[in-house]
Amino acid sequence: MGNCCDCVTGFFCRPKNTNVRVSLPAVCFVWQIAMIILFGVFIRYDEESDAHWVEFKREHNITSDIENDFYFRYPSFQDVHVMIFVGFGFLMTFLKRYSFGGVGFNFLIAAFGLQWALLMQGWFHSLDPATGKIYIGVESLINADFCCAGSLIAYGALLGKVSPVQLMVVTLFGVTLFAVEEYIILTLLHCRDAGGSMVIHAFGGYYGLAISWVLYRPNLHQSKRLNGSVYHSDVFAMIGTLFLWMFWPSFNSAITDHGDGQHRAAINTYLALASSVLTTVAISSMSQKTGKLDMVHIQNATLAGGVAMGTAAEFMITPYGSLIVGFCTGIISTFGYLYITPFLEKYLKLQDTCGVHNLHALPGMLGGFIGAIVAAAATESVYSAEGLINVFDFEGSFANRGVGTQGGFQAAGTCVAIAFGLVGGAIVGLILRIPIWGDPADDNCYDDEVYWEVRVFREYIMLQIETTFTL
Amino acid sequence: MGNCCDCVTGFFCRPKNTNVRVSLPAVCFVWQIAMIILFGVFIRYDEESDAHWVEFKREHNITSDIENDFYFRYPSFQDVHVMIFVGFGFLMTFLKRYSFGGVGFNFLIAAFGLQWALLMQGWFHSLDPATGKIYIGVESLINADFCCAGSLIAYGALLGKVSPVQLMVVTLFGVTLFAVEEYIILTLLHCRDAGGSMVIHAFGGYYGLAISWVLYRPNLHQSKRLNGSVYHSDVFAMIGTLFLWMFWPSFNSAITDHGDGQHRAAINTYLALASSVLTTVAISSMSQKTGKLDMVHIQNATLAGGVAMGTAAEFMITPYGSLIVGFCTGIISTFGYLYITPFLEKYLKLQDTCGVHNLHALPGMLGGFIGAIVAAAATESVYSAEGLINVFDFEGSFANRGVGTQGGFQAAGTCVAIAFGLVGGAIVGLILRIPIWGDPADDNCYDDEVYWEVRVFREYIMLQIETTFTL
Amino acid sequence: MGNCCDCVTGFFCRPKNTNVRVSLPAVCFVWQIAMIILFGVFIRYDEESDAHWVEFKREHNITSDIENDFYFRYPSFQDVHVMIFVGFGFLMTFLKRYSFGGVGFNFLIAAFGLQWALLMQGWFHSLDPATGKIYIGVESLINADFCCAGSLIAYGALLGKVSPVQLMVVTLFGVTLFAVEEYIILTLLHCRDAGGSMVIHAFGGYYGLAISWVLYRPNLHQSKRLNGSVYHSDVFAMIGTLFLWMFWPSFNSAITDHGDGQHRAAINTYLALASSVLTTVAISSMSQKTGKLDMVHIQNATLAGGVAMGTAAEFMITPYGSLIVGFCTGIISTFGYLYITPFLEKYLKLQDTCGVHNLHALPGMLGGFIGAIVAAAATESVYSAEGLINVFDFEGSFANRGVGTQGGFQAAGTCVAIAFGLVGGAIVGLILRIPIWGDPADDNCYDDEVYWEVRVFREYIMLQIETTFTL
Repeated sequence: MGNCCDCVTGFFCRPKNTNVRVSLPAVCFVWQIAMIILFGVFIRYDEESDAHWVEFKREHNITSDIENDFYFRYPSFQDVHVMIFVGFGFLMTFLKRYSFGGVGFNFLIAAFGLQWALLMQGWFHSLDPATGKIYIGVESLINADFCCAGSLIAYGALLGKVSPVQLMVVTLFGVTLFAVEEYIILTLLHCRDAGGSMVIHAFGGYYGLAISWVLYRPNLHQSKRLNGSVYHSDVFAMIGTLFLWMFWPSFNSAITDHGDGQHRAAINTYLALASSVLTTVAISSMSQKTGKLDMVHIQNATLAGGVAMGTAAEFMITPYGSLIVGFCTGIISTFGYLYITPFLEKYLKLQDTCGVHNLHALPGMLGGFIGAIVAAAATESVYSAEGLINVFDFEGSFANRGVGTQGGFQAAGTCVAIAFGLVGGAIVGLILRIPIWGDPADDNCYDDEVYWEVRVFREYIMLQIETTFTL
Repeated sequence: MGNCCDCVTGFFCRPKNTNVRVSLPAVCFVWQIAMIILFGVFIRYDEESDAHWVEFKREHNITSDIENDFYFRYPSFQDVHVMIFVGFGFLMTFLKRYSFGGVGFNFLIAAFGLQWALLMQGWFHSLDPATGKIYIGVESLINADFCCAGSLIAYGALLGKVSPVQLMVVTLFGVTLFAVEEYIILTLLHCRDAGGSMVIHAFGGYYGLAISWVLYRPNLHQSKRLNGSVYHSDVFAMIGTLFLWMFWPSFNSAITDHGDGQHRAAINTYLALASSVLTTVAISSMSQKTGKLDMVHIQNATLAGGVAMGTAAEFMITPYGSLIVGFCTGIISTFGYLYITPFLEKYLKLQDTCGVHNLHALPGMLGGFIGAIVAAAATESVYSAEGLINVFDFEGSFANRGVGTQGGFQAAGTCVAIAFGLVGGAIVGLILRIPIWGDPADDNCYDDEVYWEVRVFREYIMLQIETTFTL
Repeated sequence: MGNCCDCVTGFFCRPKNTNVRVSLPAVCFVWQIAMIILFGVFIRYDEESDAHWVEFKREHNITSDIENDFYFRYPSFQDVHVMIFVGFGFLMTFLKRYSFGGVGFNFLIAAFGLQWALLMQGWFHSLDPATGKIYIGVESLINADFCCAGSLIAYGALLGKVSPVQLMVVTLFGVTLFAVEEYIILTLLHCRDAGGSMVIHAFGGYYGLAISWVLYRPNLHQSKRLNGSVYHSDVFAMIGTLFLWMFWPSFNSAITDHGDGQHRAAINTYLALASSVLTTVAISSMSQKTGKLDMVHIQNATLAGGVAMGTAAEFMITPYGSLIVGFCTGIISTFGYLYITPFLEKYLKLQDTCGVHNLHALPGMLGGFIGAIVAAAATESVYSAEGLINVFDFEGSFANRGVGTQGGFQAAGTCVAIAFGLVGGAIVGLILRIPIWGDPADDNCYDDEVYWEVRVFREYIMLQIETTFTL
């Protein structure tokens, strides 16, 4: 078994024990029971999902059931749900022997995270002071899925190097930090960030990178043989890529304003993503002597346009503006995979399995600043007077905020998200270095056999041999 | 070729002939032509899908096309459709050499079953006595998909051991029995069962188990080498699991009341499923000496919360109530895979390939009784007077039924569903023992080569060699 | 390296160079920059996706945001989007060593094609003469996806035999031709073709076939070893098949009239597809000595019912009429795979990798004529006076067109689509024969190694063998 030979105290140097038979069930049971108790105390149906809806409808002169928020948001919610579970899950099946862990642990931590998110986001955003209850509806479910996304992004940086128990810890703190930074950015700073370039991608990306930096494994090369894909695992990963890519317009429009807001956010995201694909292919092909494409780029950098449109999608960025955003981020993200990831690993000792720096952290940060610029450039002639108020929610105590000020706050919000990711991730990383979590040794990473019953391994290999020699 | 050596008469002991070149095309053609004739006689568009809609709208003072039921239900319909074809289909690709049969026969029988279901459910539920016609719309399509689900669940118990012709017979009778038991439970007993814990899962599960029990194969161990998964077939099965898991909120809410009914059913199911994942992981990890997870559990028991919420999802079960249901059924279902399936096989001579007992039969039965309890506990303060009438449809001849009585009828409905499954399945099983259906021999089960052209013969040969040397 | 020895001049006979390191990035960059400039000049948000919507709503007495076209069409749009990227993409993963190219190049050309389609369709259909701008909304996105479908169908005929640069050229001309023929058929001839039997499938199919005919490779048998599937690549292709099959009702209903039009189109398509499955299975089983099924048929011919309903789905074809259409096209398409494809290859020198003749060209043409017949048979008693006007859009200068005339024009439209496909494809094919596009040699087709980095597959296998046998 490998040792982390560079750590200061012997405390971190015991041989690795990957048995999670006590810790994993304990964490699952304790946290799920805690969820039940907290839901019992705090969570109730909101007026649109409660059986009193029929009375509510009459009292508020709502003429039709179709005005229930369910019909405005449920299709988008289901698209987001697919992105969280199939999109993120299958994107992480690309490793040759870690497909179970990729899709399976993603499933586990998202299922826990969304429950904890309903509570955390509820306490910060929708706790009714009169009753002390949180009232949930379909928009809460979307927000809970969003909140999980931050931790799933972090998982991308850690893929294959941590135990499921550690992932549960990452998610517990990730969701908590998310709810706090979201409260600061959206409520205190009054930023707009419907698709979460700042609160989801920049935060989640830097959170994962900071954790991975603290958990640096000097002898990870001992697992190098498993840190790569096989032919069919790359095809599985394309399932994840495509469902993320196709449904990203729903992601960025899911919680924007009814009507033109959802409509415009979907169009802008659709265009930015299309543009990303072409520049990703161009850079990927240029980077090889014979112009061959690299599956890693196609699987990841094609999505950068969606990440970078997370803040600006609901603004009047114009269709060609969206294309430009996708154009640039496709290039930047692919360059990231080619040059930044190896640089980070070599010089900053930062091991980023899925390259979340290039897909989430960097495009998310850019998306935050793009949003700031587009907000600062908003005018009444483009938005209409009412439209400007609607889009930026200049109401109540923010009625007099100008668009320039709004742009400044948007930029500040991006910095807050990054700071939360880096500092929070560093702290969580230190917690994860306590040697009680059952993480694998350096020569045992990227391997499903550590945490999964893998059936008839030899048979699988023989199948591969045969396929190879048939060709 | 194997013989079923324990049967009483020589009639059942001829050597197996798996040639279905006459029987399969004959069944497909005859049944499809029958469908065309019966549709010609009985099926018409309803007022919302007929070109007269524009007149209907004016006559009924409907102000907008958006009030057409299509817009309330079509997104849920498509989610259910994905569950039926990709969800069930890919969940059954887990066997190493029966992926074609899993996804392909699922496709065939669902495509037939939904046509027959439109007729059967139409005759029982929506035959217009004045015109003698059945009028169909989007809700009919959802119900037809639901009706197929019963037979697809039964297929799970039979996977790899029956011929496609037998499956068509299973579906013909399955849909017929479904329509009858549904009529008794929903119309005569006036139960509520929007997501079908009783009418779909309990019925379908016990129907499949009873058939499998009658078709018991004493020498099935001769096919043991193929009764298991390989690495990538397990990843394929996760596609099925995740699409079922993600879209289950649509399944349970697809035909509930417009407005709060659909909204609440989706929330409750979402929560129950999340809770199931954590307890499934916990029990799966506890069951292995080193805490490793078993893919069979993750693929199946994580869904038990959705099954168990089928009846109660539209009720005011409360969010924490939903979590509790998922918590318990995740545990029970995983225990089922660990202990009950081996017990049934050893002592009751019941071979259940996919473990439908643990995923559908048992959680479905539990779901029926949970629905009964939640119904009996309903109060006007929780539902509002109008809400109570809406949710339980206490109108017409049921206007004076109390919630306690309703609870009793719900429990009775569950028993009716189980009885229909067991008795109907036993009879259908006997029909399937007639040796004309082309089913495989005991040493030839779980093998796609019996009913499919499998290309790259060498690959398969290598697998056989390897298996031989491993065993 | 192979030579195309049958061409007249030496110009076409140079040895093949598959290096696309300059040409592919150049095409991607130039075209994407052109898109940005043209979008900047022409494309704007329409009134429903612009921030002025709140004013527009008030001026037009629209009472609710739910009347925004987004809520009528977005769920269908997302289903269509899945068909384009996952449906077509995964359907083309069936080859044993061309799965990357199948799903990856499909992704590339669709992402380019939809941008170009927004411009081309905008110029022809929705250019505002007052402002010189094209205003886009969700319906434009659906139409852009439809427009791509034509070129993706053509890709099916060329799969494995062309370079990505050639595919970009195919798409550039394909989208252009599509927009012109669509303008002639839908606007000048005033045909109805909501699901595109004529404008998408007949056009796209014949377009691809004509290109493939011009690009005939006499020595393609040198790549025969790779022109086939392996077990798991066939399962991947079923993902494509099922998502196409399930979402085809959305495809045919996505841009039909609000209300009964969308509702009826979905029902008709659902039924035709179900019927196709049974006849495909029947013919496939009959065609083998022992009644075994062929995956190629199941993956493709089951979809023929959806193609053939593209024109007639919105008409009052009746439910049993839909079943009959699916019944016949399932048979015809399967026969096509059995007899017509080998015939075309042997006698017409036409190599059609995916058999798009049987799935798109022929059923599309049939669908066009079915539409003509159903249109000609329309009566006021069936449609109601208003319904007839709505369905066939008999307004303005077409107010006095009778249904018989309409039927004639529908038939003429089908012929126009085919003519555009054949002539346009032949010209594009000649362009593609210029030896600058980096296409593979005859002995190098169907192989991902030509255009993709395929990672150390053999080395990995050898390592695993050692590991396996030493353990």
